[in-house]
Amino acid sequence: MDSNNNPDLKYIIVQFMFPYKTSFQLKRKSKQALYLQLSNQFIVLIRERKLVPETKLPGSRTLAELLSVHRKTVVACYDELLLQGWLEVIPKKGTFINANLPELQQQEFLKNDYKKTLDSIGFQFYKDALLERKALTIENSFMYLNDGISDTRLTPTEDLARTYRRICSKQQIYKEMSYGSLFGNEKLRRTLANYLNKTRGLHSAKENVLITRGSQMGMYLSAKLLLKKDDAIVVGKTNYGAADTLFLQNTTCLLRVSVDENGLITDEIEQICKEKPIKAVYVTSHHHHPTTVTLSAERRIHLLNLSKKYKFAIIEDDYDYDFNYNHSPILPLASHDTNGNVIYIGSVCKTVAPVFRIGYIIAPTDFVNEAANQRRFIDRQGDALLELTFEDFIKSGDLDRHIKKVMKVYKARRDLFCQLLKQRFSDVFSFDFPKGGMAVWVRLHKKYSWETVAETARKYQLEIGEWQRYDLAKTNHNAIRMGFATYNEEEIYELMKRLSKTMDEVRLN
Amino acid sequence: MDSNNNPDLKYIIVQFMFPYKTSFQLKRKSKQALYLQLSNQFIVLIRERKLVPETKLPGSRTLAELLSVHRKTVVACYDELLLQGWLEVIPKKGTFINANLPELQQQEFLKNDYKKTLDSIGFQFYKDALLERKALTIENSFMYLNDGISDTRLTPTEDLARTYRRICSKQQIYKEMSYGSLFGNEKLRRTLANYLNKTRGLHSAKENVLITRGSQMGMYLSAKLLLKKDDAIVVGKTNYGAADTLFLQNTTCLLRVSVDENGLITDEIEQICKEKPIKAVYVTSHHHHPTTVTLSAERRIHLLNLSKKYKFAIIEDDYDYDFNYNHSPILPLASHDTNGNVIYIGSVCKTVAPVFRIGYIIAPTDFVNEAANQRRFIDRQGDALLELTFEDFIKSGDLDRHIKKVMKVYKARRDLFCQLLKQRFSDVFSFDFPKGGMAVWVRLHKKYSWETVAETARKYQLEIGEWQRYDLAKTNHNAIRMGFATYNEEEIYELMKRLSKTMDEVRLN
Repeated sequence: MDSNNNPDLKYIIVQFMFPYKTSFQLKRKSKQALYLQLSNQFIVLIRERKLVPETKLPGSRTLAELLSVHRKTVVACYDELLLQGWLEVIPKKGTFINANLPELQQQEFLKNDYKKTLDSIGFQFYKDALLERKALTIENSFMYLNDGISDTRLTPTEDLARTYRRICSKQQIYKEMSYGSLFGNEKLRRTLANYLNKTRGLHSAKENVLITRGSQMGMYLSAKLLLKKDDAIVVGKTNYGAADTLFLQNTTCLLRVSVDENGLITDEIEQICKEKPIKAVYVTSHHHHPTTVTLSAERRIHLLNLSKKYKFAIIEDDYDYDFNYNHSPILPLASHDTNGNVIYIGSVCKTVAPVFRIGYIIAPTDFVNEAANQRRFIDRQGDALLELTFEDFIKSGDLDRHIKKVMKVYKARRDLFCQLLKQRFSDVFSFDFPKGGMAVWVRLHKKYSWETVAETARKYQLEIGEWQRYDLAKTNHNAIRMGFATYNEEEIYELMKRLSKTMDEVRLN
Repeated sequence: MDSNNNPDLKYIIVQFMFPYKTSFQLKRKSKQALYLQLSNQFIVLIRERKLVPETKLPGSRTLAELLSVHRKTVVACYDELLLQGWLEVIPKKGTFINANLPELQQQEFLKNDYKKTLDSIGFQFYKDALLERKALTIENSFMYLNDGISDTRLTPTEDLARTYRRICSKQQIYKEMSYGSLFGNEKLRRTLANYLNKTRGLHSAKENVLITRGSQMGMYLSAKLLLKKDDAIVVGKTNYGAADTLFLQNTTCLLRVSVDENGLITDEIEQICKEKPIKAVYVTSHHHHPTTVTLSAERRIHLLNLSKKYKFAIIEDDYDYDFNYNHSPILPLASHDTNGNVIYIGSVCKTVAPVFRIGYIIAPTDFVNEAANQRRFIDRQGDALLELTFEDFIKSGDLDRHIKKVMKVYKARRDLFCQLLKQRFSDVFSFDFPKGGMAVWVRLHKKYSWETVAETARKYQLEIGEWQRYDLAKTNHNAIRMGFATYNEEEIYELMKRLSKTMDEVRLN
């Protein structure tokens, strides 16, 4: 039956029928099969009640003619819609829109405006006020005085990518590509245990290693396993802000002890222990965040002894172990731990580049096992291909060579950065020459405020960032961290120029 | 001063002095600098109280001679130890072990056995009994009747690795390698929104997309944001076990509604809503886990209407959307959601390979923003290089081509697997031919138990796995999932051979 030869019939159909011809927009060049385009558009019409339940549909031949498609396309479409339950066939009567379909209730203003749809929300969820933080957007022309971030231009990206590809081309690699160990790749666990034992004096076996995405996941898992309700954790006054927030998500009881030039004052921790049980002490023993001081040997031993006596965990966040310019890195607390009190957390993110999310927890086996159980529900597992890439990077000595190389660069940048800071700003800034890390802890003369500095800096395309985050404990130290590692010589001069202009204006007011 | 020419002096020193010469083991070929080896070994001696506080150390020249190293090595070592606080210099008197060092308290049996150290634990942490699960170790010669896992031999690993390397070699790539967006790479968010809108009828913008590590992280974040204490969530009886466990970690109130051949019985959900507020319904609308049934159109609309009326969230876990063999995939609930009730969760893990941990949440903007805030503390951010690799994979059409290719393979495997099951086991197993997914839901005749089958199977090197996990709701359905996608034709025949032997023995007893 050709509708062109039968104008009457066509007329009748069009007259009494839903305007099928104009209701569908079929793209013949689309990757999506025609019958699928057709059935999806049918569903929208049914859902929007343009086609109502109990409507009889035209026969497949008729619809095919109307839409100028092959009859098989319409048959496939109807089959699909029948299967999905949008249509029903009544024997000897024909095909109908399913009579039992309830009406989809939509918000009035949204009916024809899907673009707005996902701005509205139809349910309630918990917002954590602690996490509210304005995203820092930095314009391209701006320079950012960051917290101490590595320069990813120094990353041996191509070498790593080459290794990654080589690993992916191994014949048996598919075995590593399905669901795997919750603990991370076995080879990396072994290599990492050996590496940390050799370079940092640890005493770990493979069983003590949980590969995480980065330090952050190590911290998250530790907090989750140690802290509930009002369990006490001790941190420095001041402390790494993200750690404070994380702990406060798990417990109401965050206790602070003072920090001086030798790190956390452990006598204050002892005092607390005498008064109440604590679950953990959080320490960045190598370079305290944010002040960059190192925990002294005396206090290290004191802290370890306290942890043994009072049975608490020491969460040792060794985020920038590798970066020491004047002398070798100090062995971590974990290297002295013989009683199973230290949870040692680190990552390769800072050392190589933040994009490579490979970190670790080194801890007593029981703890590592439970952390892996929890990790299963967060993330299932890590990326075995990337883990194998880093296993190769560590084992081959490339990591050590990389560290040696960038250390020289960062040391030179620190020297230049600090020298310029001293030359130009000794009346307004005071700081100690940092022995390690990627940032200087800069105190502002008390007659000025960072708020003013940050505001003024923006005029000169310099972003100071969230200066408030360094004083969540409200000690009014009037200091911030200035990262020196991200910028090369030329950029450091440019940054100092902008800072000079800023401080010139601040001094005048 | 050459000690060989001055035997008396040497004698005196050795006599009254700590046996330095035999206490150090310096490896001249080691990568570690000699002075570092020396100082690290000094620290161990001090820590172990072999060298006690207030001990006077030999002069650098003397020690250098004793150990046959350059004097500079000893000077560097002493400097290092001074810096770290292990030594102190008393002017005009010499260098001493720091008098203020407290004694490190060690467990007696551990003093000289670091290997045992990390098996002991010195603090308490929370163990979650819910998470206790014996790790399944499968011997190499065994075949595993899994839950429905893709065959990683079909993964286009080399293509992906080539893309990864190409992306890594881009000049500006270093900009993507530092700390980045909490939401995932912007390009992938945009491409994914377009892709899902086009192929699954979603109406999402970039702002509705949070890139996660996999479905699991999407589930974790959703549970964390929706459920506290005794908030109610509704799931199927039975349901995906890992989801049940996750929800129970967040709330005490897990409510179950029946599941029939059309999926969750939504009338039961309505009944619950009339009695008490619920926060969410968890649904795997496409193929209910574990029973593989599809939620019918009527119930889809009913559920959406209920969510609007009672303001709850629908967590739609669309874990195997792509796998439909008889007809096109049914559009997800999210494609009909105009009120902002659906949290749509998916991943590319099943489709490509579990090792590539890229998943997503598509949800109202507010929810996505808060989920990103939480994610910051779990994991900071994703892997932008892998995200860009998959952005390319999706945009180029390679993902679609891959799906098309593997679909043919899996369809053939399903047909063979089910055909053999039917031929050989119709007296003991009953099942419906699965329309999609990677597993068959196999009911065992009630006179047998999976426990016996699993035990017997092991004799024939067949691992049935944790058959109990499919009935956490204790409905006694006596069924398990059998994954058919992992094995090729030859392997399926071998598996069936082992299963035949197993069931022959089971039938006899």
